[in-house]
Amino acid sequence: MNKMAAKASPFRTAEQRESERAAKREAVLLAAVRMFNQRGFHETSLDDVAASLGISKPLIYHYLGAKDEVLFECMRIGLEQLRAAASEGASLPGTGMDRLKRFLRRYGECIMDDFSRCVIRTGDEVLAPEIRPSFRALKAEIDQALRKLIEDAVADGSAKVADVKLTAFAFAGALNWTARWHEPGGRLQPAEIAAQMVEILTRGIMP
Amino acid sequence: MNKMAAKASPFRTAEQRESERAAKREAVLLAAVRMFNQRGFHETSLDDVAASLGISKPLIYHYLGAKDEVLFECMRIGLEQLRAAASEGASLPGTGMDRLKRFLRRYGECIMDDFSRCVIRTGDEVLAPEIRPSFRALKAEIDQALRKLIEDAVADGSAKVADVKLTAFAFAGALNWTARWHEPGGRLQPAEIAAQMVEILTRGIMP
Repeated sequence: MNKMAAKASPFRTAEQRESERAAKREAVLLAAVRMFNQRGFHETSLDDVAASLGISKPLIYHYLGAKDEVLFECMRIGLEQLRAAASEGASLPGTGMDRLKRFLRRYGECIMDDFSRCVIRTGDEVLAPEIRPSFRALKAEIDQALRKLIEDAVADGSAKVADVKLTAFAFAGALNWTARWHEPGGRLQPAEIAAQMVEILTRGIMP
Repeated sequence: MNKMAAKASPFRTAEQRESERAAKREAVLLAAVRMFNQRGFHETSLDDVAASLGISKPLIYHYLGAKDEVLFECMRIGLEQLRAAASEGASLPGTGMDRLKRFLRRYGECIMDDFSRCVIRTGDEVLAPEIRPSFRALKAEIDQALRKLIEDAVADGSAKVADVKLTAFAFAGALNWTARWHEPGGRLQPAEIAAQMVEILTRGIMP
């Protein structure tokens, strides 16, 4: 084997550069979302986010753009994670109630994560008017999926519900609110909180 | 009767001036809280609030102070209303469950009102650090009252609860979240929404 060939090239491949770029972008998003959640969006400056990572503010602009674009991206990730977690929970077999419970548990666990927490803690009014509709559409999709699951559970007799829409709002609201009061590192883990809450909530619609 | 005495004085009494001042202060607070709820605190300027009332911004300063003081006062009123409504609901006789249900119904109705809605829609982080503790204390008081009622219901056998704290958070969260989705003038009135939600929620802790 040639000695020269065995030595690693000091030049990164296009693939390595792309993966480094993605890792840096992710690190900026995570630092930003944690600061938004802790201090609030308006009380956070990109200077503080940059300082927490030991980088400059222009570098954040380079990766993500201005502060409202950073928020937009954090909320988009949070909503996508919520949607994926919830629909994954609902995809396994079982009665309507079984699937509803799994949907709610996964939704609840996810809501206490950094990005989904940001969706709940930030009012829609903070988003620029032109991007608000796409967010409302994503939220409505999750809400529709939840209502559909409740209807399925009613249809197969595993639940009894007077008002599907109101029941969906009650369940999602109870879980959403954990993003306001749960502190990472608290007495109970997110999975335990979600599991216990889902038991309390769904007992109310047992047939 | 003397003709002069029968004619109303063009000068207002101290009492009249005080009551006019209170009415003006209230009108400013209501206009402000509605704008905060609709647009968000940071997106609202006192200029807009003043314009909506046909008065000048300095007049708002005169009655209430700067924008964060106006918000502070709106949130204080909202929390006081919530506390009063909830404890009124709990004061009537009945089983622990009866009193818990009334507490939650009154809490739920109140949360969809302008001032209490503002408490829910505004994160604590928006408040100045020196006034945050007094707000957290008021919120903790309401939370303690709710937990106490759940404990009473467990003690007299009218409820069965695995985790009192988590149950209180689930119930309050479901009701709090109405302040995010309920639009005044929607399909259901606040009292109906609160009543139906409380039935769904408390069915989950029936013994």
